[in-house]
Amino acid sequence: MMSGDRQHHIIFMPSGLRGHVPDGTLLMDAARQLGVELESICSGQGTCHKCRVHIESGEFPKHGITSDETHLSPPTVREQQSFDKAVNATFRLACQARIEGDLLVSVPETSLAHKQIIRKSANTQRPLTIKPAVRPLFVTVEPAKLDVQPGDWERLQAALAQQHQLSGLRINLHALRKLQRTLRAGDWQTTIILREDRDILDVRPGYQDTVYGVAVDVGTTTVVAHLCDLRTGAVLATEAAMNPQVAHGEDVMSRISYVMMQPNGLDTLHRAIIDTLNRLIASAAESAGVAAEHIYDMVVVGNTTMTHLFLGISPLEIGRAPFALAARDALDVPAHDLKLKLNPAASVYVLPALGGHIGADTLAVLLAESPHTGEDISLVVDVGTNAEVVIGNRHWMVAASSPTGPAFEGAQISHGMRAASGAIEKVRIDPQTREPRFRIIGSESWSNVSNGLPSVRPVGICGSGIIDVVAELFLAGILLPDGRFNPDLQSDRLLWQDDVAAYVLADAEQTAHGQAIVITQKDVRSIQLAKGALYAGIKLMMARAGVDHVDRIVLAGAFGSHIDTERAMILGMIHDCDLRQVYAVGNAAGDGARIALLNVDKRQEARQIVDHVAYVELATDAGFQEAFVGALPLPHSTDAFPHLKDKLPAAASSPTTNITDRRARARLRNPARKRPES
Amino acid sequence: MMSGDRQHHIIFMPSGLRGHVPDGTLLMDAARQLGVELESICSGQGTCHKCRVHIESGEFPKHGITSDETHLSPPTVREQQSFDKAVNATFRLACQARIEGDLLVSVPETSLAHKQIIRKSANTQRPLTIKPAVRPLFVTVEPAKLDVQPGDWERLQAALAQQHQLSGLRINLHALRKLQRTLRAGDWQTTIILREDRDILDVRPGYQDTVYGVAVDVGTTTVVAHLCDLRTGAVLATEAAMNPQVAHGEDVMSRISYVMMQPNGLDTLHRAIIDTLNRLIASAAESAGVAAEHIYDMVVVGNTTMTHLFLGISPLEIGRAPFALAARDALDVPAHDLKLKLNPAASVYVLPALGGHIGADTLAVLLAESPHTGEDISLVVDVGTNAEVVIGNRHWMVAASSPTGPAFEGAQISHGMRAASGAIEKVRIDPQTREPRFRIIGSESWSNVSNGLPSVRPVGICGSGIIDVVAELFLAGILLPDGRFNPDLQSDRLLWQDDVAAYVLADAEQTAHGQAIVITQKDVRSIQLAKGALYAGIKLMMARAGVDHVDRIVLAGAFGSHIDTERAMILGMIHDCDLRQVYAVGNAAGDGARIALLNVDKRQEARQIVDHVAYVELATDAGFQEAFVGALPLPHSTDAFPHLKDKLPAAASSPTTNITDRRARARLRNPARKRPES
Repeated sequence: MMSGDRQHHIIFMPSGLRGHVPDGTLLMDAARQLGVELESICSGQGTCHKCRVHIESGEFPKHGITSDETHLSPPTVREQQSFDKAVNATFRLACQARIEGDLLVSVPETSLAHKQIIRKSANTQRPLTIKPAVRPLFVTVEPAKLDVQPGDWERLQAALAQQHQLSGLRINLHALRKLQRTLRAGDWQTTIILREDRDILDVRPGYQDTVYGVAVDVGTTTVVAHLCDLRTGAVLATEAAMNPQVAHGEDVMSRISYVMMQPNGLDTLHRAIIDTLNRLIASAAESAGVAAEHIYDMVVVGNTTMTHLFLGISPLEIGRAPFALAARDALDVPAHDLKLKLNPAASVYVLPALGGHIGADTLAVLLAESPHTGEDISLVVDVGTNAEVVIGNRHWMVAASSPTGPAFEGAQISHGMRAASGAIEKVRIDPQTREPRFRIIGSESWSNVSNGLPSVRPVGICGSGIIDVVAELFLAGILLPDGRFNPDLQSDRLLWQDDVAAYVLADAEQTAHGQAIVITQKDVRSIQLAKGALYAGIKLMMARAGVDHVDRIVLAGAFGSHIDTERAMILGMIHDCDLRQVYAVGNAAGDGARIALLNVDKRQEARQIVDHVAYVELATDAGFQEAFVGALPLPHSTDAFPHLKDKLPAAASSPTTNITDRRARARLRNPARKRPES
Repeated sequence: MMSGDRQHHIIFMPSGLRGHVPDGTLLMDAARQLGVELESICSGQGTCHKCRVHIESGEFPKHGITSDETHLSPPTVREQQSFDKAVNATFRLACQARIEGDLLVSVPETSLAHKQIIRKSANTQRPLTIKPAVRPLFVTVEPAKLDVQPGDWERLQAALAQQHQLSGLRINLHALRKLQRTLRAGDWQTTIILREDRDILDVRPGYQDTVYGVAVDVGTTTVVAHLCDLRTGAVLATEAAMNPQVAHGEDVMSRISYVMMQPNGLDTLHRAIIDTLNRLIASAAESAGVAAEHIYDMVVVGNTTMTHLFLGISPLEIGRAPFALAARDALDVPAHDLKLKLNPAASVYVLPALGGHIGADTLAVLLAESPHTGEDISLVVDVGTNAEVVIGNRHWMVAASSPTGPAFEGAQISHGMRAASGAIEKVRIDPQTREPRFRIIGSESWSNVSNGLPSVRPVGICGSGIIDVVAELFLAGILLPDGRFNPDLQSDRLLWQDDVAAYVLADAEQTAHGQAIVITQKDVRSIQLAKGALYAGIKLMMARAGVDHVDRIVLAGAFGSHIDTERAMILGMIHDCDLRQVYAVGNAAGDGARIALLNVDKRQEARQIVDHVAYVELATDAGFQEAFVGALPLPHSTDAFPHLKDKLPAAASSPTTNITDRRARARLRNPARKRPES
């Protein structure tokens, strides 16, 4: 049917790519020549129906053509079969239809080879091209015949070379074991699952296009798994659970101690996280109606201790100088070596770390927020037990881990707790009455003394609540700039003992356990030390980079998405910045893991980021201690908050000692406390 | 110390390679430039002491030089350390000593990079260069330091790039898990075990050069494992055991039936062979004083059913037309996927097969006997349940599987048994008296009626004994050329019943179980069918190749090494050939496996052989039946045996029926049989 004499004018919409092709050209070939990559799992066999396009009919004077179905060869048998399944018969298969006249072709998004999804980033919508490591390929294999000695595997390779121009492929034992059964079950038609055009992970009978992956963020406290469709990029299910290692230590250092002290410590922690991931994945697969054996890829991020424990590598060296990682680079390991219950040939990609104390989770945040691609100077802060800080733009980046301690997570705070149900997460203090209001996780409304008891009763206070309360205590004049409780102040919320005060945030009768929730002087000091360390680290890094401002602040992590950024800045926790340019991006590490799962180029980009970033060791910086001490007062600077300036109290001259307020002390008792209703 | 002005004359012995090098050149570099590859595991660090050479001292007028120790730089500290360990201090380390005058250098075999071993082949001694897939490399890694963010893995890679010019290496999870501990235990010196300059299998502290491999021949009946030193090529231990699958079927077809009929048949047979291999390997390692975790490579051969079962791949398709293999090509699988107890990162290389019924064992025989490299036409026969036959030379080769049935293995023979203790393996029959003598496996001497009872008593007859007895019965005139017992013959060894005779080979009182061992007419027919099939196959293959003779016959397998080649030729079992050119090569398949283990180039050669050999399907050849019928008489041809011609009896005219010889029948009874002494 091919005759080179006549040329037809073809326009593909919505891209507008156009050109002339000879009469008889396959629509698929014309698209490829003009730069429109159509999806084709079956490589033109008319089986997968992925290359459906719509032919616009009519006069298109703007384009100077007339387009019509009659300008194509008649539908083939394969196309007619596809029409039976398709909703709209005006679609044609590009791999079947030959061009016999001018055409205006509409290509639906779903027929494009490299689909895009739009994902939300801090201050923008970013497109992500779907380019997974693993893809399905449909292939028809020559049947076994007497006198044909090559085995099924060799004939499959020959078919792949002929139909998909692929050679040098490898097959694993698991796929090889099912190969003969599969080929015969599919009547010599099979879908192979191919990884990076090299490894055949699986063989499945007939045409099948379901391939899935999991993106995992292993946090010290929380583990999150996103089950994704590797063809469409859609998130099918997200499951989260407490990291079971919490039972053996709240923070990274206590996990490392556990490994050091317990005979099977490493194995216990490793098995715990693997078991939890298997449970999360099974549950995600079930809720999405997906077979776990069709999950072929997994990307994992976490801090360096978490990724080491996940891989079963001892984190001991991370816990002691010189803090050497076993591997900083990205790692690619077989899922079954880790006893993960995915497809037996699935592999696990762990994103690289930046250094001993800045892990793949931070790199994933960078991948999601792309500070390394723009001109604006970004400050990315991921607050956890330590705060990981990255500053820079496309020309330079510096990263450091700031030894904040666990105060921001609610640890080492008198009534501190994790951000779980019952935790006070937001606090406001009336500057006149010094009376508090608070909001509790699990409740939509604010507590109000005038309203009586809150519907959900608090059990403690989490990180964002602590930031709030210390900032509010300062704004209400209860705390002095040096962090001491104002000794000149009279308030029935203040409780004094031996010169040391505490603020009663919730009366004993308000709480779930019948004990008052108080903020002590020691709690305030802990927050001062933590914010001082973070601020000093950022200041040093900016000095190293030779900049005196940042254009944008990105707060990552669950903590970052809950804190009140204005209060955090009042505390002097993060550097001054236009508040409109401060973004809380939630689980950006999980987003980064998902990005690396859906697009292999992003894995390469992650490794390039490692080379782009200069790691700064704050612990050994001579200037750190001075900067730290200078960053302890509340607030460090108010330049960014002209509207707050008049709200800020003047420093008190001297403390008044040995004041005991009976009303305040009474708040600690709850004589009428009844059992909570069951 | 380098000064390019002066040149020195250097001669390396025993190769005689010589040339001039500038003053100050390292002996190692001079050797490399002149084509002498010295071993160097430590890459010139003076640690491994493998590059020791001897400096000849004195006047060498033939070479026109004076050579002396003083013509080298003084011994370095590293060399002095090596002298403490060396027996002879006149050795120098080529990687340390610099040339300062003319030298005559003797290089011991042990210092050569590519060692050779001499191995016996059928009619020659063949050198084999040791070039294993796995080798140790010594490397010194930069210690971890504060402010150095790359992990231990990245610093190991940097050291390998710098000290050994290796890049793009991969490490497995097992090695990565022990990396940090190992580097610190070896004070940052480590030996890595590298596979094909790509994969780091293991990391071991300090300098270690022990790397081992196993070559395995999985026979239907017997499994043999050779434990080899991958550096020297030495066989350290050989262990053999019965294939435990025998309990589920004697031959290949019955194993396939077992897989088909039993719910967990495949798994049972797979586990059985793996367990046996693990036992053999453990036992070989123990007797050689070697740690099993230092075994990093394994090569496996076997017939197609055996290799499929070994890999856990169902052999069902091999058992039914069109006899498709899952894979014909060589396979490389992780040992731990098979639960083999070697180093966790060891891999298993299964040699390719030639076709559905000619497996890796036959290819291994070809690798060992090299019929594909010479001009002589070789006939290679491996007799088992089927006989695999390969004919050809460097220009062409044909291969086929001949359906001999299991008679040659002693199966389907009245008193047949495997070649085990108590089996009659050799038989001679006096042409005058028609009295037999035999030799039994486990006994050195021949039975002799005049000697009374043999010291070891027979329980049956094995394959080689059956060949012998049928040939001898024919030579003694007891069998007619058409295979019938001669009805005209009077002998008290012949027992007749309803026209059908049997020959009493061992009296009831001679045997271990008190029952006579007889050769029946049916037994003779079975041997005729088997040898007819084998002969017909060979004849057809020769016809296909257009040749009418072979220059050399190689009989492989345990059976091949036990049969009397003259008797086999009298039977017409194999084609005529000068008897001096008939070789029984024993376990050549095991030798071939060992060759592929010790030299990776031979693995490539094996794959080239597959391409070189044309596979012939005899079952579908129209001429087979005719050739088969024509090959049934005894013997088929005696052209090759002029010395036997006069021994051969004339054909009898007609059978005499209903003769019963009482003396013969009496041999079946053993009224005086006592219990064997315990």
